[in-house]
Amino acid sequence: MAARKTLYLGTFVHSESLTELEFLYDGAVFVNESGTIVAIQGPCEEAKVKEMMFPRLGWAEADVDIVRAKDGEFFFPGFIDTHIHASQYPNAGIFGQSTLLDWLNTYTFPLEASLADPAKARRVYSRVVRRTLAHGTTCAAYYATIDAASTNLLADLCLAAGQRALIGRVCMDQLSPDYYRDASPEAAMAATRQTIEHIRAVDPQMEIVRPIITPRFAPACSMDLMRQLAELANEQNLPIQTHISENVNEIALVKSLFPPSVTGATPTDDNGQDPTSYASVYDAAGLLNDRTILAHAVHLTEGEARLVARRGAKVSHCPCSNSALGSGAARVRWLLDRGIVCSLGSDVSGGYSPSVLEAARAAVLVSRHVAQGAAAAGQAAEEEADRQKLSVEEVLYLATRGGAEAVGLAGKVGGFEVGMEWDAQLIGLGVVGEDGEVEEQDGGDGNVDVFGWESWPDRVAKWVYTGDDRNTKRVWVKGRLVHERK
Amino acid sequence: MAARKTLYLGTFVHSESLTELEFLYDGAVFVNESGTIVAIQGPCEEAKVKEMMFPRLGWAEADVDIVRAKDGEFFFPGFIDTHIHASQYPNAGIFGQSTLLDWLNTYTFPLEASLADPAKARRVYSRVVRRTLAHGTTCAAYYATIDAASTNLLADLCLAAGQRALIGRVCMDQLSPDYYRDASPEAAMAATRQTIEHIRAVDPQMEIVRPIITPRFAPACSMDLMRQLAELANEQNLPIQTHISENVNEIALVKSLFPPSVTGATPTDDNGQDPTSYASVYDAAGLLNDRTILAHAVHLTEGEARLVARRGAKVSHCPCSNSALGSGAARVRWLLDRGIVCSLGSDVSGGYSPSVLEAARAAVLVSRHVAQGAAAAGQAAEEEADRQKLSVEEVLYLATRGGAEAVGLAGKVGGFEVGMEWDAQLIGLGVVGEDGEVEEQDGGDGNVDVFGWESWPDRVAKWVYTGDDRNTKRVWVKGRLVHERK
Repeated sequence: MAARKTLYLGTFVHSESLTELEFLYDGAVFVNESGTIVAIQGPCEEAKVKEMMFPRLGWAEADVDIVRAKDGEFFFPGFIDTHIHASQYPNAGIFGQSTLLDWLNTYTFPLEASLADPAKARRVYSRVVRRTLAHGTTCAAYYATIDAASTNLLADLCLAAGQRALIGRVCMDQLSPDYYRDASPEAAMAATRQTIEHIRAVDPQMEIVRPIITPRFAPACSMDLMRQLAELANEQNLPIQTHISENVNEIALVKSLFPPSVTGATPTDDNGQDPTSYASVYDAAGLLNDRTILAHAVHLTEGEARLVARRGAKVSHCPCSNSALGSGAARVRWLLDRGIVCSLGSDVSGGYSPSVLEAARAAVLVSRHVAQGAAAAGQAAEEEADRQKLSVEEVLYLATRGGAEAVGLAGKVGGFEVGMEWDAQLIGLGVVGEDGEVEEQDGGDGNVDVFGWESWPDRVAKWVYTGDDRNTKRVWVKGRLVHERK
Repeated sequence: MAARKTLYLGTFVHSESLTELEFLYDGAVFVNESGTIVAIQGPCEEAKVKEMMFPRLGWAEADVDIVRAKDGEFFFPGFIDTHIHASQYPNAGIFGQSTLLDWLNTYTFPLEASLADPAKARRVYSRVVRRTLAHGTTCAAYYATIDAASTNLLADLCLAAGQRALIGRVCMDQLSPDYYRDASPEAAMAATRQTIEHIRAVDPQMEIVRPIITPRFAPACSMDLMRQLAELANEQNLPIQTHISENVNEIALVKSLFPPSVTGATPTDDNGQDPTSYASVYDAAGLLNDRTILAHAVHLTEGEARLVARRGAKVSHCPCSNSALGSGAARVRWLLDRGIVCSLGSDVSGGYSPSVLEAARAAVLVSRHVAQGAAAAGQAAEEEADRQKLSVEEVLYLATRGGAEAVGLAGKVGGFEVGMEWDAQLIGLGVVGEDGEVEEQDGGDGNVDVFGWESWPDRVAKWVYTGDDRNTKRVWVKGRLVHERK
């Protein structure tokens, strides 16, 4: 794990703001042994920048590895997947015509339950970590299963592979099949504590793996369990993840399961927040705070969005999943307008792909359906409908900076700045020769065809629309090389 | 080009009907020297089937090549892309925030015009043919540009590479930039005839390449030009391709450009078809018949759909393009319910991907947005909304059998039946070992991870949702091997 000092040279691209990418050409990024960026220079020549910076940093050339991006390649921050069920990966692409609630019972719970078999869990989780790293995911907020031992195994595998991960042992003590349910809130809490202790033991500083409190979703959790989980999260200052408002039938179910007599909820909003809303249920349990990641948020009401914003909870937008399961199209602009931090989740296996790049592309496309829907419903003038569209720049922000905020690592990862850690991917695109052929590059032959006349922003757009894991040549976490294409 | 007799052995999958795939395990398909399927057997053992069939067919074993699908691989009919602008390929993924009409002027027309340069045209078209073959496209209905010479070059390249293609020289004599417009209907007709003659000269039987009459779309064509093109198509029994009802502003433009005083249209529908509708314009020109491919059809009215159905024209559904350009979500079920044949188009570069598999996946996803929209608008009960969803089986039908109908090759390609031609792809999926690793297969390491317990229909679903060109190991057209992954 001990890395050497490294100087990265070439083109660097990252999000300067939600709407703008910053391009640093002929740049130089200096990363120390612990994976922290200590200096950034550019544009500059290699010899000059070494001559100037090495003495200033007190670096001896012999101690420094040099990584050069080739012409046309660029460094980009690693992707952050803020919602992924590692345990569901083998079902990626398998839905039939189901929607959320029947999909859970038909496909999901049986698979999750089967991962209590340690050999199967090792096989599946190893694959997930390999796959997601290959797609440039340097940090993932994982749901495992209710089984503590295999949840711990997932943490071990992430730590060994060097992938930053939030590891969630799934808590669910009601309305789930007998074969896959916590026996009681106490049993759920005990198993959860076991995973937290394990992670503290294997990564005491929680530099790579951290536990995340994971009530599956309100329908599967008693108020008692949710309250105890909220207390634990507060005691230990832990992040929280759950689902919210994914599917209309699920929302109706929450309403019926959690009347105010169960939640003790009272109107909390200035304008009279509905105490039976999905968000109110979590709020009544104490689960809504600025360390909470809420997946989906497709059908939030105006009042719920205000509540979520006020609590500082973050949203994981999962467009692949929402489209595949027919859940709906989340209004990301509407959420952003309300001051809610948004990020991207692959939501494997509601989402069919473990790629955050695919989620980014889907976020662009789904936002155009939101715009169309707004225009068609006459809710908005053309200009306002157009505002619903997310740009390539914006979805890349969600995939990096937004993700970092969601997982509590803002200022530490998600961009290239002095003081941040080197979580990055090297991106290479295919270059079409004069004969129309593409040279086989190291790392294979992806689908991005660059003809040479494209601007840098257009190259990035081509990557987002037509790229895949073949374009992710190398991946680093905290300065450590964690993936390289053969 | 002379192929040998070939016996294909393994698993064969094709569409039996719109809603059902047929699986033939341990099957044997016998293809003669001209690429025609002469016998199909199975399930059977190799030795037995040879012993039984070779004498019956009069084949000597020494004359026969054997192609065996490995365990887990399967043969699938080649994809048919019924709408692709070869000339726009370099812009795949480049849109900005534009919609149809400004996208044409900003991105599309300048690129198309530049392909009058033969070197550039050769570079771009070579790349397109390579790429689409690699994605399993055995037949494509191409739009080239207004330039006859480079359109002919596209035909030559398809013929040389062995890709079935309908080659359309684009006709547009109005409302287009000065630098990219036919000088007159006569000039457009003369250039079109030139490409037809060229194709007849290079492929007299039109076995691989055929000309297709291509008025770009109504806004860019005078009535005079459209009428002359319709006459030419009738004289020579040629297919026709154009765009219809893609974008709401485009539809308004058509209405303003083609009042009945221009088209001479009168109500033609039993129920009083609107004579200023988009479909009526084409009908008035004589362009709507059973050899016509209409791309998009996103916003057709009930009356237009009836007219299209009555004329027997086919629709090319282009979901990637419709989402990316924010055009809307075509109601494929609604079109099918009206008896209209539907197929899939990549619509490069309104569509960002040259892959029909990507279009199939997008068709599944977009149909779920249609269902959601229907449910949200209260237009339909839940069951009726659910009916809008397209299944994996249905989109694969559109990609093969539907495509074959659209391009006038029904009964010849699109499935595996005696008498049909061998246009096929060999699909291989990644198999995850007990250690969670995937063996590097010939042809690379795609994203489909099969764990081994999946049913065959689930494997096909995984391919549709998570597959790409890496899973297309080999491609044949008319018995000729036209692509093989290294």
